[in-house]
Amino acid sequence: MANKFIISIDLGGTNLRVALLDLKYGFIDKLNFSTKKFVKKDDLISAIVDSVSNIIRENNLKKKNILGVGLGLPGPIDVKLGIVHFFPNIPGWKEVALKAILKQRLRLPVFLDNDANLMSLAESKLGAAKGFKNVVCLTLGTGVGGGLIISGTLYRGSTFAAGEIGHIPINEAGPHCNCGGSACLESYIGNKVIMKDAKKLFKRDISLEELSALAKRRNRIAGRIWSKIAKSLGTALVGIVNLLNPDCIVIGGGIANAGAILFDNVRQIIASQAMSVQAKHVKILKARLSDDAGLIGAGILVYENLH
Amino acid sequence: MANKFIISIDLGGTNLRVALLDLKYGFIDKLNFSTKKFVKKDDLISAIVDSVSNIIRENNLKKKNILGVGLGLPGPIDVKLGIVHFFPNIPGWKEVALKAILKQRLRLPVFLDNDANLMSLAESKLGAAKGFKNVVCLTLGTGVGGGLIISGTLYRGSTFAAGEIGHIPINEAGPHCNCGGSACLESYIGNKVIMKDAKKLFKRDISLEELSALAKRRNRIAGRIWSKIAKSLGTALVGIVNLLNPDCIVIGGGIANAGAILFDNVRQIIASQAMSVQAKHVKILKARLSDDAGLIGAGILVYENLH
Repeated sequence: MANKFIISIDLGGTNLRVALLDLKYGFIDKLNFSTKKFVKKDDLISAIVDSVSNIIRENNLKKKNILGVGLGLPGPIDVKLGIVHFFPNIPGWKEVALKAILKQRLRLPVFLDNDANLMSLAESKLGAAKGFKNVVCLTLGTGVGGGLIISGTLYRGSTFAAGEIGHIPINEAGPHCNCGGSACLESYIGNKVIMKDAKKLFKRDISLEELSALAKRRNRIAGRIWSKIAKSLGTALVGIVNLLNPDCIVIGGGIANAGAILFDNVRQIIASQAMSVQAKHVKILKARLSDDAGLIGAGILVYENLH
Repeated sequence: MANKFIISIDLGGTNLRVALLDLKYGFIDKLNFSTKKFVKKDDLISAIVDSVSNIIRENNLKKKNILGVGLGLPGPIDVKLGIVHFFPNIPGWKEVALKAILKQRLRLPVFLDNDANLMSLAESKLGAAKGFKNVVCLTLGTGVGGGLIISGTLYRGSTFAAGEIGHIPINEAGPHCNCGGSACLESYIGNKVIMKDAKKLFKRDISLEELSALAKRRNRIAGRIWSKIAKSLGTALVGIVNLLNPDCIVIGGGIANAGAILFDNVRQIIASQAMSVQAKHVKILKARLSDDAGLIGAGILVYENLH
C-alpha cells in the first residue's frame, strides 16, 4: 500500500475544500475554492472533478496512487445509491446521482456521505471521542448538524437521514424552521439567530468571538445570551442523553469556541435535568479536529469501504 | 429441546405476572399476583421465587425442563451485572443484586431487563415491528416507557438506560418530573396527568375509555384533550424521527387504545413537522402484543442469551 493516498472533499455552501491524505489520515496537501462562482450544478460538478485532477497532478501522482475519493456533502444523501436528495443551502440540486457521475468522470472509487456524519466518524476514530462506543456529535454553525456512533459504528438511520440534532423541537410551539418544522433547536442556536438576538440587545453588529470575550469579562448581557443558548442546547441534549444513554457528546463548530461559558452551563443542565444513571455517565467534550474533521472523515469513509 | 420451557416474569408496581412459555413463545400457563401485599423487598423476592416453583409444580414439570427465567422489571437495571439500581414505584430497592440472589435461590439461569426493553424486543421479533430494522417502541401508561431496536438489535445504551422516551423534554420550561427533570413528555401525557386534566374540564372523574368514546362521538372537550395529547407526543416523536430516522414507531399501552383519534393526529404532526426524508419513510403502528409483550420479551431474552 505504499504510494497510496486518499482524496477528501468537503463541499459547503461557501467553500469547496479538497485534501490529499495518506492512509493514516495525515494531510499531504489541501486546496480551497470558493463555491460562490459555480452557480450551476454542472459547473460545481466540473469544479469537483477538476480539483481532484489538480491535486493529483500538483503532487506528482497518478490515478493509480489514489485509493479513492470521499465526499462530505451539506445535505441528505442516499449513501447506498450515491444520490444527493437536495442541498438546503445550494440551489439546483435535486435527486442528483452524484456518485455515478463522479465515478464515470474520475474513473476512481467514489464514496459520499453527509458532512455531519463524516465529522462524527472522524471525532470518534481519531478525535475527542476516540475509544468511546456510543457517541453523539454536534456541529454548531449556521446550521446545527449531528451524527451518531452506536456500538462503535456510524448509525445512518433507515434512509441515511439520522443524526439531525438541529431539528429536534425544544418546544411544542416556536419559530418556523427552514426544514418545515417548528421550534427546532437550530432556530434557537443557529449562528445567524444568535447574532440577530445579540444585535438587538447590543444595538450593533457583534461577532461570536466578541460575544464570548464579553461574557468572559462578566458582561451581563453577553452572559444572558450564553445562558439562553445553553438552556436551548441543554434541553435538546437532556432528551438525547435520556434517550440514547451515550458515553459522550462531542460539540464542535464556531459556538464551541466559547469554551467554559457554554460547556459548564450545558454540563450543569445535564447534571441537574437528565436522569441520574445517564447523567452520571455521559461526558460533554469539545471537538478536537476542528475544520479538518470533515476531510478526515471522508478519508475514513474511503478507507473503511475498501478494507 | 423437547420438554423445554421458559419462565417469564413481569414485575410491575401493582402486579407480579408469571408465565410458562414454550420455545416458540406460546403461553402454556399464566399466573397473576398482587404485589401490594409484599411491602418489604425480601418478601417480594420470596414471592418471585415461590411463583417460579409454583408454576413448575402446577404444570407437572421439573427444574430440568426449564431453560431459564427471564424478568422484566420496572426501573433501571445493570443488565450485565444483574443489578436493580432502583424502582421508581416500588420503595426499598436500591442497588439490589437480584440476578445473583435469584440464581442462587432458584438454581436456574436468570436474566433481567427493563420492562420497556422487553416489550420492544417482543414487538420487534413477533409483533407490530416484525421485519423492521430500526424501531422505536413506546408504552403509554402511568409512566411513558420506551425501547430502541437499532440495526435489528435491542440498543441498551452505555449503562443500560437508553430508551427513556418519557423523559425527553418537550419544552424548555415546564412541569417538574419525578425523574428530576422538567417538561418531560411523561409529565404531559402520563395517564394520571391526562385524567387530572380531563377531570378539570369535565368537572367529574372520567376514564381513558370514556374520553376516547366521547371524542369518537365528536365531543368538543374530549377532542381538545386528545389534540393536546397528540401535540405533546407528536413533538417528542418529531425529534425522535429526525434524530433516529427509524423504520417505524410502535405505540402501546392504555392510551394507544384510543385508536384513530390519537394515531391520525400523531401521523399528521409527523408528516407536517418532521424532515421530509425521515417523515416519508416512518410508519406509526399500534402495538400488537398488548399486556403480554413484556412476558414474551422476557422469554426472548432467555432464549437469545442461551443460543
